Amino acid sequence: MTSTTDGKRLEAFSDGVMAIAITLLVLDLKVPPHAEAAGNTTAHGLAAALGHEWPSYAAYLVSFLVIGIIWINHHAMFTQVRRVDRAVLFTNLGLLMVVSLIPFPTRLLADYLTSDDSDAHVAAAVYSATMLGMAVAFTGLWWAITRDAGLLHEHLDRAAGRAALRRFSLGLAVYGGCIGLSFVNAYATLAVHGALALYYCFDQLSTSAVSASAAEEQPR
Amino acid sequence: MTSTTDGKRLEAFSDGVMAIAITLLVLDLKVPPHAEAAGNTTAHGLAAALGHEWPSYAAYLVSFLVIGIIWINHHAMFTQVRRVDRAVLFTNLGLLMVVSLIPFPTRLLADYLTSDDSDAHVAAAVYSATMLGMAVAFTGLWWAITRDAGLLHEHLDRAAGRAALRRFSLGLAVYGGCIGLSFVNAYATLAVHGALALYYCFDQLSTSAVSASAAEEQPR
Amino acid sequence: MTSTTDGKRLEAFSDGVMAIAITLLVLDLKVPPHAEAAGNTTAHGLAAALGHEWPSYAAYLVSFLVIGIIWINHHAMFTQVRRVDRAVLFTNLGLLMVVSLIPFPTRLLADYLTSDDSDAHVAAAVYSATMLGMAVAFTGLWWAITRDAGLLHEHLDRAAGRAALRRFSLGLAVYGGCIGLSFVNAYATLAVHGALALYYCFDQLSTSAVSASAAEEQPR
Amino acid sequence: MTSTTDGKRLEAFSDGVMAIAITLLVLDLKVPPHAEAAGNTTAHGLAAALGHEWPSYAAYLVSFLVIGIIWINHHAMFTQVRRVDRAVLFTNLGLLMVVSLIPFPTRLLADYLTSDDSDAHVAAAVYSATMLGMAVAFTGLWWAITRDAGLLHEHLDRAAGRAALRRFSLGLAVYGGCIGLSFVNAYATLAVHGALALYYCFDQLSTSAVSASAAEEQPR
Repeated sequence: MTSTTDGKRLEAFSDGVMAIAITLLVLDLKVPPHAEAAGNTTAHGLAAALGHEWPSYAAYLVSFLVIGIIWINHHAMFTQVRRVDRAVLFTNLGLLMVVSLIPFPTRLLADYLTSDDSDAHVAAAVYSATMLGMAVAFTGLWWAITRDAGLLHEHLDRAAGRAALRRFSLGLAVYGGCIGLSFVNAYATLAVHGALALYYCFDQLSTSAVSASAAEEQPR
Repeated sequence: MTSTTDGKRLEAFSDGVMAIAITLLVLDLKVPPHAEAAGNTTAHGLAAALGHEWPSYAAYLVSFLVIGIIWINHHAMFTQVRRVDRAVLFTNLGLLMVVSLIPFPTRLLADYLTSDDSDAHVAAAVYSATMLGMAVAFTGLWWAITRDAGLLHEHLDRAAGRAALRRFSLGLAVYGGCIGLSFVNAYATLAVHGALALYYCFDQLSTSAVSASAAEEQPR
Repeated sequence: MTSTTDGKRLEAFSDGVMAIAITLLVLDLKVPPHAEAAGNTTAHGLAAALGHEWPSYAAYLVSFLVIGIIWINHHAMFTQVRRVDRAVLFTNLGLLMVVSLIPFPTRLLADYLTSDDSDAHVAAAVYSATMLGMAVAFTGLWWAITRDAGLLHEHLDRAAGRAALRRFSLGLAVYGGCIGLSFVNAYATLAVHGALALYYCFDQLSTSAVSASAAEEQPR
Repeated sequence: MTSTTDGKRLEAFSDGVMAIAITLLVLDLKVPPHAEAAGNTTAHGLAAALGHEWPSYAAYLVSFLVIGIIWINHHAMFTQVRRVDRAVLFTNLGLLMVVSLIPFPTRLLADYLTSDDSDAHVAAAVYSATMLGMAVAFTGLWWAITRDAGLLHEHLDRAAGRAALRRFSLGLAVYGGCIGLSFVNAYATLAVHGALALYYCFDQLSTSAVSASAAEEQPR
């Protein structure tokens, strides 16, 4: 009734979108204008000008880690997948839309992080909302994949699957809380997003969630 | 006489172009200039400035959906294809040209949608004409693939193939109508393109068109 | 002595670079500034402003065709290749460098085509020189591939190989002539590049050059 | 205990990021503004304006070679790899972060190379530091791959592996020295980076390091 295909092209297209989004981040690292061109009479020099742009580097670093970890988890998730159907294609497209959006809130936050007024809070909230959208999209993709056992390799550890879903829910709550934190302190919000990214780097639970199927050598 | 190859690299190149086109859309989401830099004495703030750019977000969303659905349908189409020849390579190149163009009319429409004068109509017409070009290119690619049974897997449902061609023709008529609508109301035109994209998302006919070959497990 | 690998990743990397270069071309299609913002008191409107930018569209079209045909010929060439060595990797890297450069002379020519003075000639010459570089790089890649029979599938038609090399030489002469033509008429130069691209589209010789190996079903 | 997967998607994602980073370099080759628009009364012409931008071309060329050689060595390295684990995924992500950063120091150096003051030294030092970071990341990836024999194909030449690690250490020292050289002469620093890239092009040691496994036909 429903048509399914193997996930090779979905993986290739997803790899492409995520590789581009993660690489486009560099376009927002701006070269400071020459002092004379900027009408800048006090000679701070290039080193100071670069140091002044630290919010750009911090936002770049956090967003790079976020997209990199999304890719690693997407990769781990699809080692469990044998076939994809249209629901998986569309929830995956939703995830890709959020991922490809990330450069926008990244440059917004880099631009407004050091603003004195409420603009920094707004920028941090937009960034946090994007991350919440990413968590929602990831949870939706996980639901689409696990709702039909026929889409999965036989070795799925169902308890691990449910544990992963619980952890996705926790992620939703944390990212939701980041939106609130944005209106308190924009710097702290970016720091929390960085800490979350590092946490997911060393997260062993998500590893064990895929180990049942991936630890043995699959002939893919 | 004519040379054919399997379609793996055509799929890889197409995935690349579509992944890049869909991700480049984000470059046209502009960060609003700081209020003081813009010489803006009335303090609207970042939130209002972002809200003011809603045409960019609407155009981004519609174009993302359009390219995403083109990819999904391209993917579905090529599950039926066993071999490609030069005619398929060149009609596919034509489709990729239109897809890679999409970011241009998208930013044109985002920039001019709220213009008071006839410029909004022109921008909407250019956007609609690009979508018509996309529908023409897709129809041409379908023709190139189905004109030679030797290019297809054996399981092609020919009635479904003819139904798909009829539906492509309908698409041509609808997109042609959008060009006319552009000169009446630019907002309505963008809304219709969004509705069309959503319609294709849930379109079951195109699913059934590929189910004959794809529902069984192909050893590709 | 020399190490060789199969060409899968070379193809994947080349597909990526060519897909990106062909898609980046769209970034140089500029949205005309709003009439009031441009300090333009005479109301030409968006349609006239877009029409005024026809050199951008012409240059986009020609460069898109050129990169698309490079990809198709690269694809045809590598259906004959069984193994790649370091000489192939580096001559291929040279070709990719020229391909990834193409967006630069394209926007240069688009910007200066309608200049009255000698700048249009210079821009056309830079464009033509890039195309000459592309032809040189393609010839070098073909030499690297065909210099060692061990790199090829067994079915190479060696007469066709020599014919292809002769045709590459002809291409070098034609592109060299385009540099001279640039200093006579920039418009004619762009038209010749477009005609050359269309010629290669319908070129049957290059098809026959690969048909010996590709016409039968290779288990790649 | 630890989960591993084959490295196909890691290679695909890495190919994507490196292909994009190498192609984005072209965005920093700027078309000179028209003489009249620049308020330039003395008619230097386009040819002189292009010649004036030679630092952009030099930086483009060196960075293109650097990323190209990283790709070739990455490719050679992964012909030895049978399985990847999370440590390889993350050290590879670190390498990709440095590679995707390269367009930023490239345009920084292109912009400031001909500055009279100390800014040229700072720009060259940032460029050199990025190259050092690349060498560190490459060494880390090599360590992650070779620390576990189970990740490798059986044919690893361990002496060659240790020789490669020694050579990586030498690379670290040379790139570290380039940071110091930056504060003496920025032009010489760029020239050394170009010479290093050319040296790695013709480097036979890294070839022999992979020849043990790759010279025979692997059924990958």
